[in-house]
Amino acid sequence: MASAEYEAILKVLLDACQQINNGSAAVAQVPEGIPVGVSNRHVHLSQADLDALFGPGYELTPIKDLTQPGQFACKECVTIAGPKGAIEKVRILGPVRKDTQIEILTGDGFKLGVKAPAKLSGDMEGTPGITIIGPKGSIMTKQGLMVAQRHIHMLPEEAAAYGVVDGQIVSIQIDGPRGGIYNNVLIRATKTSALECHVDTEEANAMDINSKTTVKIIK
Amino acid sequence: MASAEYEAILKVLLDACQQINNGSAAVAQVPEGIPVGVSNRHVHLSQADLDALFGPGYELTPIKDLTQPGQFACKECVTIAGPKGAIEKVRILGPVRKDTQIEILTGDGFKLGVKAPAKLSGDMEGTPGITIIGPKGSIMTKQGLMVAQRHIHMLPEEAAAYGVVDGQIVSIQIDGPRGGIYNNVLIRATKTSALECHVDTEEANAMDINSKTTVKIIK
Repeated sequence: MASAEYEAILKVLLDACQQINNGSAAVAQVPEGIPVGVSNRHVHLSQADLDALFGPGYELTPIKDLTQPGQFACKECVTIAGPKGAIEKVRILGPVRKDTQIEILTGDGFKLGVKAPAKLSGDMEGTPGITIIGPKGSIMTKQGLMVAQRHIHMLPEEAAAYGVVDGQIVSIQIDGPRGGIYNNVLIRATKTSALECHVDTEEANAMDINSKTTVKIIK
Repeated sequence: MASAEYEAILKVLLDACQQINNGSAAVAQVPEGIPVGVSNRHVHLSQADLDALFGPGYELTPIKDLTQPGQFACKECVTIAGPKGAIEKVRILGPVRKDTQIEILTGDGFKLGVKAPAKLSGDMEGTPGITIIGPKGSIMTKQGLMVAQRHIHMLPEEAAAYGVVDGQIVSIQIDGPRGGIYNNVLIRATKTSALECHVDTEEANAMDINSKTTVKIIK
């Protein structure tokens, strides 16, 4: 082996040691069964869109903290509408975001008359727009309508314990009389995550998933 | 081996030969991918309940034949109501049956405020009742509210080709970006069946199943 190859190998080993020392590759104690959070349709708003819908400088009213740190459900709801129909009482989740994003169920898309692609939160590419109606005005978004791709939030050290990495696609196994397996579940490992697998209401109902259900990662 | 045991074994072999000869165990040509029928919430009514809801001697109005021979969707709809809410425009499927049966989605159960168990069509044991409202009257059924257990209709010779038998529990594999596997799918092999896997709207939406989707049996 040439000296340059030895050096490259040693560099990889050194990087790994440094990662372990600074904690970014630490391995956590994790449960085999991952808790599940079931998401109904909801909206994230930019401050500009919040202003347009609720009035200039409006501030959201938190009513319930969500499991992911800093996220909360708001008192405020909106109506969303497409060419075939409207859906009332769609909950706003806070805090405000850079971009407005509307996460619906597949069945909602049929009701609205708009096909929403399954996308990861924040990935607006190819998403259609929708009309949002608030108490002080309405807007037609250029994009942001999606069905949330199922995903699992976890800390990097929890990912290490499950033997997965941020961005990896896995399957999840659901036990019980209406159980099965969902493919194409994305691992989202960040330093501000709480361990939780997110599925939407239809995905939950199809397999009788409730707040006590846990799921197992299959690679 | 005792003579009686030989005789028992020969009897089994003889029965099998006779089944093959009279065609009841014939093997059909079948596709690997089984077509899917997606069922939304619906009601089957007894003649007595149809009379109570639509008037004495009422006859259902077929508007669309279903894939299963003799079954049809009707022009008539009803409202169903529970302690927490009501659902309008629930389609009646014909023809009338011996017993009234109300097949809802899991999400409908939350809206109605009644927990409906996943049951095979016709199996009323342990099912709760519900209020049904028609144009000429309303009834409170003693039982019959269920979520339909996913199942596959097929002819006995198709079952033989898939290597399954009537009443067997299998899993089904769904391909695609939101695919996966549903467990606990019942084989219903009868001489009047058309090959079709039945899932409900939530099960379809959770895996992006549409009228072109086919599923594969996993044993």
